[in-house]
Amino acid sequence: MDFKTELKKYQNQIEKELEKYVRKQSCPERILNNSMEYSLMAGGKRLRPTLVLATYQLFRSDYQICMPYAVAIEMVHNFSLIHDDLPGIDNDDFRHGKLTNHKKFNEATAILAGDGLLNNAYMVISNDLCHTENLEEKNKKIKIFAEFSMAVDRMIAGEYIDTEYEGKEVLAEYLEYVYQNKTGALLKLCVRMGAILAGANEQELKQLTNYADKIGLAFQIKDDILSVEGNELITGKPVGNDEARGKCTYVSKYGLEKAKTILAELIQEAIEMLETFGEKAEFLKELANYIKDRNK
Amino acid sequence: MDFKTELKKYQNQIEKELEKYVRKQSCPERILNNSMEYSLMAGGKRLRPTLVLATYQLFRSDYQICMPYAVAIEMVHNFSLIHDDLPGIDNDDFRHGKLTNHKKFNEATAILAGDGLLNNAYMVISNDLCHTENLEEKNKKIKIFAEFSMAVDRMIAGEYIDTEYEGKEVLAEYLEYVYQNKTGALLKLCVRMGAILAGANEQELKQLTNYADKIGLAFQIKDDILSVEGNELITGKPVGNDEARGKCTYVSKYGLEKAKTILAELIQEAIEMLETFGEKAEFLKELANYIKDRNK
Repeated sequence: MDFKTELKKYQNQIEKELEKYVRKQSCPERILNNSMEYSLMAGGKRLRPTLVLATYQLFRSDYQICMPYAVAIEMVHNFSLIHDDLPGIDNDDFRHGKLTNHKKFNEATAILAGDGLLNNAYMVISNDLCHTENLEEKNKKIKIFAEFSMAVDRMIAGEYIDTEYEGKEVLAEYLEYVYQNKTGALLKLCVRMGAILAGANEQELKQLTNYADKIGLAFQIKDDILSVEGNELITGKPVGNDEARGKCTYVSKYGLEKAKTILAELIQEAIEMLETFGEKAEFLKELANYIKDRNK
Repeated sequence: MDFKTELKKYQNQIEKELEKYVRKQSCPERILNNSMEYSLMAGGKRLRPTLVLATYQLFRSDYQICMPYAVAIEMVHNFSLIHDDLPGIDNDDFRHGKLTNHKKFNEATAILAGDGLLNNAYMVISNDLCHTENLEEKNKKIKIFAEFSMAVDRMIAGEYIDTEYEGKEVLAEYLEYVYQNKTGALLKLCVRMGAILAGANEQELKQLTNYADKIGLAFQIKDDILSVEGNELITGKPVGNDEARGKCTYVSKYGLEKAKTILAELIQEAIEMLETFGEKAEFLKELANYIKDRNK
């Protein structure tokens, strides 16, 4: 298995699927739709939907079943980016080298586009539920709907603490809490959605949840490291940005070397969680390494 | 039946129910929770949840069944108020004589509190779905979940047009569209949720939907009239506010007298839709009159 090829395959499948949800019709609110599309189709790693699909494929090959959930999670991710970038929160003008939503459109449009994307995620889920006849499938999806809404709740709470306590002493105390909620909850949800939809048993779900917890935290720590020693032409973020903002991170809390050690350990532990799945888990193992080794 | 007494009864039931959803626990994001609570528990007419309960009670008395949906719709309503008031949208400092959310807290908190309330509505719905065993009930609620998400989508689209085209000629053309979406879609949803949950047949659902459409539009027209001739000590909004903002309304489009005639006709037609329901519909009929005659 070539990881990069596999990843690209997932990304292409997701791009194609997302395009189906773009509303191109002429309607009075078309600029709002354009604004949602602008952010949703801006590229990005598509890590979250990839996690859904790849976890599902540990068990089953008919991955189309989990596409609505892969799409919904990417919508939520983009809602959170649009709102985080707003002048009232992070006040960022660029993301991945492109104008942020409120700079490309305007603030009102960006607020409502974020709202619209969050709500769109639930339109996608409810539409899928409406078209699910099989009772067992229906019940799985209802469980996922509940986990989905709770993970989004955690993400919003994490974002709140991260924003409100930026540069304050108290954030060091809450750092793990912020990481678990702001990013971790959604990544965990992705893995769990794939596993639940595929019919994983309790033990498998537990192992995969552990895997997700570990790569979720690792993902954040890697972000912290990139903020110190990344190439800003590649990351698209100024080096030293976190430090300049007085942001508490794993690097400011533990130092760069210790942060790297923690990162490597987490990835190792994450990979161990996949051992019992054998060869089929190769992609998810490589994905963990990719999180550690990525340069953006 | 005394309308005022009945209305108060509904409002009290709703206040009591909403309180159950207020999160009082000590947690790092408690101020975000306080901010959500501040808006959710700020009073208001509770018109939307009252519509859910009263419609349900045309058919059945066990109204607790629709409480989660009554709560969810009030959360969505308050999410929309918080975001509409933001500096990036209407930039309002007061609502019903109280500081708006971003003035009481701050902008970041208000954005996230709005997001949180929208998402909370779906947490409430998903939690109720998880606890519904009966298949017929489950299917009804899935249908409601889908209608709910679509109505919120319409509300956001209506708000977008209202905001972006304020003071522009083009809004006159879109006025009905804005009213149907921004306020109408949610009011219609309330009536339909009550009816669907109670097991209304197709014909009943159609009549009640018509009723809802008419009171929804009437509600907006009455708002337009109050903006011209209301008592600002009672409405809490400056008289002439719409005009000063160059806002297109039913009054600016049709003139005050014609707007009053349209309002009266809509209410009459709404009441006619309830004739076949007999005495049980007394409250909903009075509610239509209340929308016409209210002074705030």
